[in-house]
Amino acid sequence: MKRIVVINGPNMNLLGGREPDKYGAMSLDALNGKLAEKAAALGAQCEFFASNSEGELVTAIQNAAGADGVILNAAAYTHYSIAIRDAIAAVDAPVVEVHMTNVAAREEFRHSSVIAPVCAGSIAGFGARSYALALYALTESF
Amino acid sequence: MKRIVVINGPNMNLLGGREPDKYGAMSLDALNGKLAEKAAALGAQCEFFASNSEGELVTAIQNAAGADGVILNAAAYTHYSIAIRDAIAAVDAPVVEVHMTNVAAREEFRHSSVIAPVCAGSIAGFGARSYALALYALTESF
Amino acid sequence: MKRIVVINGPNMNLLGGREPDKYGAMSLDALNGKLAEKAAALGAQCEFFASNSEGELVTAIQNAAGADGVILNAAAYTHYSIAIRDAIAAVDAPVVEVHMTNVAAREEFRHSSVIAPVCAGSIAGFGARSYALALYALTESF
Amino acid sequence: MKRIVVINGPNMNLLGGREPDKYGAMSLDALNGKLAEKAAALGAQCEFFASNSEGELVTAIQNAAGADGVILNAAAYTHYSIAIRDAIAAVDAPVVEVHMTNVAAREEFRHSSVIAPVCAGSIAGFGARSYALALYALTESF
Amino acid sequence: MKRIVVINGPNMNLLGGREPDKYGAMSLDALNGKLAEKAAALGAQCEFFASNSEGELVTAIQNAAGADGVILNAAAYTHYSIAIRDAIAAVDAPVVEVHMTNVAAREEFRHSSVIAPVCAGSIAGFGARSYALALYALTESF
Amino acid sequence: MKRIVVINGPNMNLLGGREPDKYGAMSLDALNGKLAEKAAALGAQCEFFASNSEGELVTAIQNAAGADGVILNAAAYTHYSIAIRDAIAAVDAPVVEVHMTNVAAREEFRHSSVIAPVCAGSIAGFGARSYALALYALTESF
Amino acid sequence: MKRIVVINGPNMNLLGGREPDKYGAMSLDALNGKLAEKAAALGAQCEFFASNSEGELVTAIQNAAGADGVILNAAAYTHYSIAIRDAIAAVDAPVVEVHMTNVAAREEFRHSSVIAPVCAGSIAGFGARSYALALYALTESF
Amino acid sequence: MKRIVVINGPNMNLLGGREPDKYGAMSLDALNGKLAEKAAALGAQCEFFASNSEGELVTAIQNAAGADGVILNAAAYTHYSIAIRDAIAAVDAPVVEVHMTNVAAREEFRHSSVIAPVCAGSIAGFGARSYALALYALTESF
Amino acid sequence: MKRIVVINGPNMNLLGGREPDKYGAMSLDALNGKLAEKAAALGAQCEFFASNSEGELVTAIQNAAGADGVILNAAAYTHYSIAIRDAIAAVDAPVVEVHMTNVAAREEFRHSSVIAPVCAGSIAGFGARSYALALYALTESF
Amino acid sequence: MKRIVVINGPNMNLLGGREPDKYGAMSLDALNGKLAEKAAALGAQCEFFASNSEGELVTAIQNAAGADGVILNAAAYTHYSIAIRDAIAAVDAPVVEVHMTNVAAREEFRHSSVIAPVCAGSIAGFGARSYALALYALTESF
Amino acid sequence: MKRIVVINGPNMNLLGGREPDKYGAMSLDALNGKLAEKAAALGAQCEFFASNSEGELVTAIQNAAGADGVILNAAAYTHYSIAIRDAIAAVDAPVVEVHMTNVAAREEFRHSSVIAPVCAGSIAGFGARSYALALYALTESF
Amino acid sequence: MKRIVVINGPNMNLLGGREPDKYGAMSLDALNGKLAEKAAALGAQCEFFASNSEGELVTAIQNAAGADGVILNAAAYTHYSIAIRDAIAAVDAPVVEVHMTNVAAREEFRHSSVIAPVCAGSIAGFGARSYALALYALTESF
Repeated sequence: MKRIVVINGPNMNLLGGREPDKYGAMSLDALNGKLAEKAAALGAQCEFFASNSEGELVTAIQNAAGADGVILNAAAYTHYSIAIRDAIAAVDAPVVEVHMTNVAAREEFRHSSVIAPVCAGSIAGFGARSYALALYALTESF
Repeated sequence: MKRIVVINGPNMNLLGGREPDKYGAMSLDALNGKLAEKAAALGAQCEFFASNSEGELVTAIQNAAGADGVILNAAAYTHYSIAIRDAIAAVDAPVVEVHMTNVAAREEFRHSSVIAPVCAGSIAGFGARSYALALYALTESF
Repeated sequence: MKRIVVINGPNMNLLGGREPDKYGAMSLDALNGKLAEKAAALGAQCEFFASNSEGELVTAIQNAAGADGVILNAAAYTHYSIAIRDAIAAVDAPVVEVHMTNVAAREEFRHSSVIAPVCAGSIAGFGARSYALALYALTESF
Repeated sequence: MKRIVVINGPNMNLLGGREPDKYGAMSLDALNGKLAEKAAALGAQCEFFASNSEGELVTAIQNAAGADGVILNAAAYTHYSIAIRDAIAAVDAPVVEVHMTNVAAREEFRHSSVIAPVCAGSIAGFGARSYALALYALTESF
Repeated sequence: MKRIVVINGPNMNLLGGREPDKYGAMSLDALNGKLAEKAAALGAQCEFFASNSEGELVTAIQNAAGADGVILNAAAYTHYSIAIRDAIAAVDAPVVEVHMTNVAAREEFRHSSVIAPVCAGSIAGFGARSYALALYALTESF
Repeated sequence: MKRIVVINGPNMNLLGGREPDKYGAMSLDALNGKLAEKAAALGAQCEFFASNSEGELVTAIQNAAGADGVILNAAAYTHYSIAIRDAIAAVDAPVVEVHMTNVAAREEFRHSSVIAPVCAGSIAGFGARSYALALYALTESF
Repeated sequence: MKRIVVINGPNMNLLGGREPDKYGAMSLDALNGKLAEKAAALGAQCEFFASNSEGELVTAIQNAAGADGVILNAAAYTHYSIAIRDAIAAVDAPVVEVHMTNVAAREEFRHSSVIAPVCAGSIAGFGARSYALALYALTESF
Repeated sequence: MKRIVVINGPNMNLLGGREPDKYGAMSLDALNGKLAEKAAALGAQCEFFASNSEGELVTAIQNAAGADGVILNAAAYTHYSIAIRDAIAAVDAPVVEVHMTNVAAREEFRHSSVIAPVCAGSIAGFGARSYALALYALTESF
Repeated sequence: MKRIVVINGPNMNLLGGREPDKYGAMSLDALNGKLAEKAAALGAQCEFFASNSEGELVTAIQNAAGADGVILNAAAYTHYSIAIRDAIAAVDAPVVEVHMTNVAAREEFRHSSVIAPVCAGSIAGFGARSYALALYALTESF
Repeated sequence: MKRIVVINGPNMNLLGGREPDKYGAMSLDALNGKLAEKAAALGAQCEFFASNSEGELVTAIQNAAGADGVILNAAAYTHYSIAIRDAIAAVDAPVVEVHMTNVAAREEFRHSSVIAPVCAGSIAGFGARSYALALYALTESF
Repeated sequence: MKRIVVINGPNMNLLGGREPDKYGAMSLDALNGKLAEKAAALGAQCEFFASNSEGELVTAIQNAAGADGVILNAAAYTHYSIAIRDAIAAVDAPVVEVHMTNVAAREEFRHSSVIAPVCAGSIAGFGARSYALALYALTESF
Repeated sequence: MKRIVVINGPNMNLLGGREPDKYGAMSLDALNGKLAEKAAALGAQCEFFASNSEGELVTAIQNAAGADGVILNAAAYTHYSIAIRDAIAAVDAPVVEVHMTNVAAREEFRHSSVIAPVCAGSIAGFGARSYALALYALTESF
């Protein structure tokens, strides 16, 4: 079975309650539950981690060493955390950057990602489905 | 059946021959063939269009009015074609921006997309599979 | 009779259907019809051209050589087409830049015009009437 | 009768004498006289105001509340007077920004207008006729 | 009794009428009246001045020499009047910069203040109460 | 009684010892004690939190949900923590940004605040009294 | 006799009192007196004007038409008054820009002068003597 | 015989008529004729293509695959056509960038070339002879 | 004996395993062991701390108060952590910034250090020996 | 007698021959001769030095230590020679920056001076007389 | 016979030894020898000069006055030596800027040339042949 | 014995006399003497060179070919001499960049080094000891 690590950054723990018009009404637990199911169907197993702390996210990415893939929504840290970028570059698992919203259509400071250049690819704008697409990307061939 | 329009921009006609380490060895025809199959499996039908000309791409996007989705790899025009951006904004179909390479890891001028803000979402870095992920995004619910 | 060439750029063919709150409900044909009438009243005759293609617009401007004036809505190309700028500079007819919307009140990238410095003047923000004002500008003295 | 307020900013009082190759040989009084005539023909009545002082121009714009339109050549203040911008935004009359010269073809610092985003539209490059076009814009329908 | 000088810049004379959703429905006179009362309760006496003219504001600040404090809403001039900045630096009274709105949440050009570096402190975003807080700042110890 | 949450960011725990000419000689505990007293007099009750960790500050802001107000000195994080910004935007309590020093008079990088646009207002430059003014702002009407 | 017009901008009326370590202890009247004497010795006659108002300075420069020279210390307006720049360009007298302090050694925003390009020359950093050097420049040949 | 492809971009079709002081009086046909002769003398054969359309130029460059060299005057597209850049990078023939004028001495926006980094070399400023020098560069050794 | 505190930032815990061509094959423990030995030879004693968390690094720097020196490799935080900068400025021990790699030869964003201005000095590019040089710097006189 | 050192930078040796419309027809020797005379009249003695070499100019400035003043036309080096700037800062004589032309009216890159902040003052735009004014500045009191 | 002056800037004396993959294996003497031969064949005579010193290059360019052409590889000075630029502008011989490498494909700081605007033309990217092409440019007509 | 070349740039010849609070009271000769002694103790021999001239420094670096190391304080040239950068890149000896002061804490223009990317490493802020640390770096292993 493939091992997929799903990591969520700051304020993602509020999912479902926070700005539901932007992020939808599904809680992070519910989202993770659906991902676990879908992963099973695709022959993979998910581990989940979420934190508001940059340092803990760095450690979580380091701990994903050896996984078949990492699905990372670094949230706000996407735009300035070189520490997370360095952790991604240091770990040997492919990391897929996901965003629920179309960040390119939001504030200017959300248009640049310091982690994108060291990720395998990135997916943005499909709500909770962004995570599901990342699962496909890490488990399916064409 | 869902109608999905797949549009490819400049130099994508060279796929398979051009810088195969970046873009893979599959030709555009082969890629389109695989997408047509996958679309059928997902209950959708693809129309394909490719051009080196910005104006023809604008027209193709206008012609996609009423479709269930557009998969657009605007290639080089991604970075400066406000004309294509305006066409996307004017048409009522959701447009998914795709890139085969992880553009964020390439030259500086490829990091900004003038079309992203008016697309529904974007997917980059998964080679030919970027198109397949876009198909999922436009046809599957979670 | 004065010869006035009216040239419209990308996506202007959608006029009437596209974002009617911004561009109004009048189609490009209807607009051209009204301009033809007004021109007649002012002792002028209009020729009309519209294209989504930058290259065809360049050629159309070249073909306006010898006209008494050109009314040009370069739309999206306004902001980056140095090719159109060079065509305007190369042709001997005075070119009036028109915009239906007040571009200065829209996205940042619409605030600069690469063609303005080589036009005779510019008129923006009056909807379909922007074209009519350009007609006055090219035909009436004070 | 429509009430149109015509406001001229700093150094416009020198019209006719100052750099006649740029601004023509007509004095501000003569220009205002011609506008008054044209206004009458269009069923409107003009009030005229000119000042070198930013504060007095702010007050004049405030005093135009309730007018059918304001024709404003803010001259040098165009490029930095946020105070005038705020006055335009605060008043309920449509303001048309006019310039005699094609400002886009002059010094770099004349290319940006801090007032344009809150005006109804703008007209530049037609000499004294820029004012006349603004009159049409505020009094005629198409 | 402490002497506090309250100075309001361009377009603040329209208070109550201008964009009431942003600035509230209270007129400048009413606001000054309430400040006078509050000042009395705090053992201070207010002098009031308002002008649309940058030069008159410079002079008013010079005239505040010797006061126990100045409450200054420079409005639009906040963002570019180095003349007002120099007046503040030249006068020996502590100046508190106030804004009714949260300027940081408005247009980009309102985010920088050329006067803030020479003021004692600044207060923004509390509507008419911003002035009251400034009164506390200039009269109360902790 | 109103519930007010007072949150202090990195290095504020050193208050009283750190650069006393800038920050005064009062310790954070002493400051909090005085705020508690003042709050009581204004019919409010304060909760206090301080941390050097960005993640813990994000969590503390999330925990302030439902409070009548938050007084936040994000210290250094003010200038780059989009994670804290997102937490402020996600929580339903009004947040007042405070700074003891006049940040506009310090290093260039302290002039911009990424959190200000999502706060209710901001107060800077009054030393320990900045907090007291924030208390007034959150508890008093005018 | 040569006619020299000496114009001083905002806050120069405070000379002698304002930041004497920067500007010296001599009042503006005293300075003007010494200039008048020196001018007499050089066969010239000075007229003096000072104002805090940008508009009045514009008018004063217009009124200097026909003079043999203008000595202009535009003070803070040096850095942003395009209105004063336009007045200088419109008047036919040579204008010498003077500054008492070495503006290049002060704040960044004082390093650029919008009026310098249209002046005949500029002199900075010699205190009250900057004016005297300008007198030499306008009256002596080499 | 060596195969050399000569490609000219927008407005080059006007050669001879357009701004003859800048571009000389020789038409594009005449220039091509002289190049054909010179090529023959150097043991090479030229193919000629010119278009105002960016897309057609992209295709022409693709069609030059296998040639011994391409002489490309991309004219206005030099400064923004990433599509042409990508075509040059995708084709296996060495491309020499030529300009008739010394673009470094013209408008600021003509100073940067997005195609230069993927060309073999570039030659500018020698009028029609720039093409001849490119011929030497592609056919002669030292 | 001199007390030297050695602090390592994010991802330095991976030393030896992470990108060994850049950072060498020595683990952080091994490196610290060698530093302890060298320190002893130089009459100093080292304390070691490492963390991925910005907040914990801030606290560690605060705890170094009174030490004879701090050797700090802030790693990724070097480039944006104003919180760490403020901690360095607040503590009374001299801090030497070290980097194993020559950061000036790496990505653009690694060229600027927000902590350098408040450090005593900085040493970069000598691999593990950068720490040893810092030891010399803090213990030896010339 | 006062000792004044006059130093001229690159290409000033061509004076009289080089662009005489900009720099006049007087040779550097002739200019120096006139300065020597004027200096004598003012109770001063001039030493003259000119070089095209940045390093020799640095040395010449160092050699001016102890002089009563330096008149320096650093010509092109004005805009980038930090080495000359450092020499000026290191020497104890007051240095007056002179330019014959009004550099603010020339190319953009001539608008900034890296040496101005460490000079005593600067004089530009008066042709050969700029040097004479500098002589007055260094020898006369007001 | 035509007189052509060939001038080489800093580090060009290392030719043949320095980075031979970039600059080839031919020494500067050998290159000059080949140019002398080619010049003879073209009816011209070359003078050669090379220096690491900016000042000596300035003088060499001045000494080329009256020549039929200058071939100048200013090497590193290309990017910042305004002194060399001024020398080129001051001398009456046409100067051709040459580079062996395609500087547009190298580091960002090598993309701009301060001397290009005052040269007759420029040639880059053809190795030692760049000089030969410059010879053609200065001696042949079309 | 190792051969170490010590090269000092412009104004370093003034060491001991120039701004002693920044650079200390030790002359360059004294410093070199101490380095020679220390080198001997470390089994190395120093050669010393100092010049104010950029070209001579370029030559000195070229002459260091084959040395075991170069200690280079390029002083002011650090910030703009691409010629020195090219010399460092062309020579086969490792170059250590040293600065006596902590350049990151000085003027903005001293924060960037054009030579750092091609040096082996850099050391700044330790006064004369910066050179000694460089000696260790070039002679000791860990």
